[in-house]
Amino acid sequence: PPDEHRTTPKVRAVPSRPGAVPVLSGPCAQPPFIPPQGTRDHHPAQMTLLGRLLGTVVSCFKRHGAAAIDTPVMELREMLMEKYGDNSKLIYELQDQGGELLALRYDLTVPFARYLAMNKITNIKRYHIAKVYRRDSPAMTRGRYREFYQCDFDIAGQFDPMIPDAECLKIVHEILSELQIGDFLIKVNDRRILNGMFAICGIPESKLVTMCSTLDKLDKMPWEEVRSEMVGEKGLSPEAVDRVGEYVQLHGGMDLIEQLLQDPKLSQNKMAKEGLEDMKLLFEYLTLFGITGKVSFDLSLARGLDYYTGVIYEAVLLQQQNNHGEESVGVGSVAGGGRYDGLVGMFDPKGRKVPCVGVSIGIERIFSILEHRMKASREKVRTTETQVMVATPQKHLLSARLKLISELWDAGIKAEMMYRKDPKLLKQLQYCEDTGIPLVAIIGEEELKDGVVKLRDVATREEVNIPREELAAEIRRRLEP
Amino acid sequence: PPDEHRTTPKVRAVPSRPGAVPVLSGPCAQPPFIPPQGTRDHHPAQMTLLGRLLGTVVSCFKRHGAAAIDTPVMELREMLMEKYGDNSKLIYELQDQGGELLALRYDLTVPFARYLAMNKITNIKRYHIAKVYRRDSPAMTRGRYREFYQCDFDIAGQFDPMIPDAECLKIVHEILSELQIGDFLIKVNDRRILNGMFAICGIPESKLVTMCSTLDKLDKMPWEEVRSEMVGEKGLSPEAVDRVGEYVQLHGGMDLIEQLLQDPKLSQNKMAKEGLEDMKLLFEYLTLFGITGKVSFDLSLARGLDYYTGVIYEAVLLQQQNNHGEESVGVGSVAGGGRYDGLVGMFDPKGRKVPCVGVSIGIERIFSILEHRMKASREKVRTTETQVMVATPQKHLLSARLKLISELWDAGIKAEMMYRKDPKLLKQLQYCEDTGIPLVAIIGEEELKDGVVKLRDVATREEVNIPREELAAEIRRRLEP
Repeated sequence: PPDEHRTTPKVRAVPSRPGAVPVLSGPCAQPPFIPPQGTRDHHPAQMTLLGRLLGTVVSCFKRHGAAAIDTPVMELREMLMEKYGDNSKLIYELQDQGGELLALRYDLTVPFARYLAMNKITNIKRYHIAKVYRRDSPAMTRGRYREFYQCDFDIAGQFDPMIPDAECLKIVHEILSELQIGDFLIKVNDRRILNGMFAICGIPESKLVTMCSTLDKLDKMPWEEVRSEMVGEKGLSPEAVDRVGEYVQLHGGMDLIEQLLQDPKLSQNKMAKEGLEDMKLLFEYLTLFGITGKVSFDLSLARGLDYYTGVIYEAVLLQQQNNHGEESVGVGSVAGGGRYDGLVGMFDPKGRKVPCVGVSIGIERIFSILEHRMKASREKVRTTETQVMVATPQKHLLSARLKLISELWDAGIKAEMMYRKDPKLLKQLQYCEDTGIPLVAIIGEEELKDGVVKLRDVATREEVNIPREELAAEIRRRLEP
Repeated sequence: PPDEHRTTPKVRAVPSRPGAVPVLSGPCAQPPFIPPQGTRDHHPAQMTLLGRLLGTVVSCFKRHGAAAIDTPVMELREMLMEKYGDNSKLIYELQDQGGELLALRYDLTVPFARYLAMNKITNIKRYHIAKVYRRDSPAMTRGRYREFYQCDFDIAGQFDPMIPDAECLKIVHEILSELQIGDFLIKVNDRRILNGMFAICGIPESKLVTMCSTLDKLDKMPWEEVRSEMVGEKGLSPEAVDRVGEYVQLHGGMDLIEQLLQDPKLSQNKMAKEGLEDMKLLFEYLTLFGITGKVSFDLSLARGLDYYTGVIYEAVLLQQQNNHGEESVGVGSVAGGGRYDGLVGMFDPKGRKVPCVGVSIGIERIFSILEHRMKASREKVRTTETQVMVATPQKHLLSARLKLISELWDAGIKAEMMYRKDPKLLKQLQYCEDTGIPLVAIIGEEELKDGVVKLRDVATREEVNIPREELAAEIRRRLEP
């Protein structure tokens, strides 16, 4: 059976000159071929890790009663356009090959809204785990790719305020706690509070969207730089920007909400007041959930996407202490989301709205942290689940091995054998050591005669004869407690 | 919590005139938008079914010791070209957006070969379950789509003959048996036997590939039609074609292999003889696996793809008897594969070969059978796994519900509640009936005072008070035996 030998290729495939045709019978024109820029293969060890990670996420989504849906990787191009603002230029488009104009999905939220409108669903709690595509500058060491997983949980429907919103934050809290990737903070804000704040500071309405995207940079650069971008590039008055500056440096909990509800200017703005009152309700619910310790109402949180209409949130990992000898990996946001009450209506012929709130878990960044940690710990990850190796100690026993392994497979036992007529016993045992198979079922001439199989524990080297018809049950007894 | 209301839209989105821009604030130009031609959304009930189906397939692959890998959905266009013969025209190409020329994968085999060559892996047993893309004419009712899943299991490495090949057939047999989709037959042939047969019949070597693709139609049209295509369109001599005709109508088991090994002409052809001897070995191994009853050596099996070099196989469902009142769904092949010893070498700079054999399970066709059966049986599929509904019988108890459900989530219980401040108890119970939630945890003023929760069995309507701190354990005891 296979063991892997791999090296990472250092050369990219050079695009061949036009007209150069790969030779069908021999090697291709310019191998080695590698995956497109910003994409990657997942090796078996990575798949094992990814499987565990997604398992945790899916379990949480199911614990909260979500059903799964799936949508195609491509959508009508027209449907995707005008949904992502400036980011639309990052959408991968398919060639016009004499059919519809198509593009690869940019996220799972817009296809979800299309799905709801098309099927006239007004009420659903769903999760969707799939890859999305962005022609962005890849930063692969930091877990930023052009093809990457999104893990989305959304609640659509007309409900009493902030109950589903609070559940989304609870979900982020559960997943990040369970994954044990270090301390985290969930920042929360509301688009209505932001818009109200901008209004009372004297920022014209036409600048609201661009203000949000500039404000979004506050976690990467100091306020002074953000301020000069607002004044310089965006052409806003220094006085207005300074008023904004006072607000966006505020963060806290219930106390801050109460304080802003008393703020003479902010409390006069209808939108801001609505947002603040909902924020107060949200914090009451989060208190009942016992998670306010990791949630911060943060007036600088803006989030890039256009479609949010209410509460927004983003989880960030806090600086890790390197007491385990781990290298620190720069990761920022590991989850984010918010309320988007207008998106479904954009896909409905009559503009009927379906209020939605959801969260997306940034699985790729979390994956790169866990992968890094795994490498640092030199933990050997099993990539298969094989329970037993079927082995023979003498020559001319291939038939015996094939017959026995077939019995085991039919009994539901995970079993492997070497694809050799007469492999050496030592090689067969060595394969178990290499791949972590815990048991060996040895069948030799003696065992055949006696109707038994010698079951060997790879770790302890203990061997015991088991009646052949009891072998599957014995393997199960030892490994499936 | 959500329940679904959906209808299937009857109108396709009309592509808008060039320059028409969807209105961002209102509904889009031409909704409703639907998925691209030949693709589809998967609804929650379909996802549940698909999950079960893929679960069976993955379990089998793992039982045989395979590790998982994944590759990107897009590949360098050049890498994919010249691998699929005439079918290359079905490849989806991405637009040249100022980067690499990319295309969507057409199958999982060519990316697998690329992966092996690039990483210099000479030895692996892997499975890969992912969607592939073909711009084919969709026949969606028969389970043929432009975006569809492939479930591939492949063994790469230099091994003793026919041992991995036999395991691939065993896997097909296990999966089709376990899925209980009706009686099936696995047809087996060998490209070397086919080529040898064509040679001794007097078919020129230049016509071998086209002969295989014409021969492939034998399961859809009678020999007479295939014959006239060979003589007419392909321009072969009627005598040569008639000699082919005698061979390709043969099928059987070990007896036929022995007979052909004695065939005075065929046994003189080196390739055919090699193929027949390996076929004999294969049938010996299949006999040990106890599966020859469903395997037929069939000289008409050719398989379309260019890259096969040895054994080929295809599983077909046999006509189902409609004794369960099921409509019969026309499905043909449900699994297929073979040996391709030359493909990896095409991606290696030095042309180093890695022998491979594999099988692909036709999950979409199987899915459409199971879906059809599910609809016919009117079985109600649960789309969520929620164990308990947290409910309140009086008003002003939202806080109590939030606190209790939070405790349950933290204890790992799958729990839902209605996103309403004061829902009627009847509505909460009705939701359980509708969605199949088996238990209700009712917390009213009385229960709060006594520190208990009333646990109600939805089916029997029995109610019993449980001390609050024992609730999670009691739910687990009832539902996780």
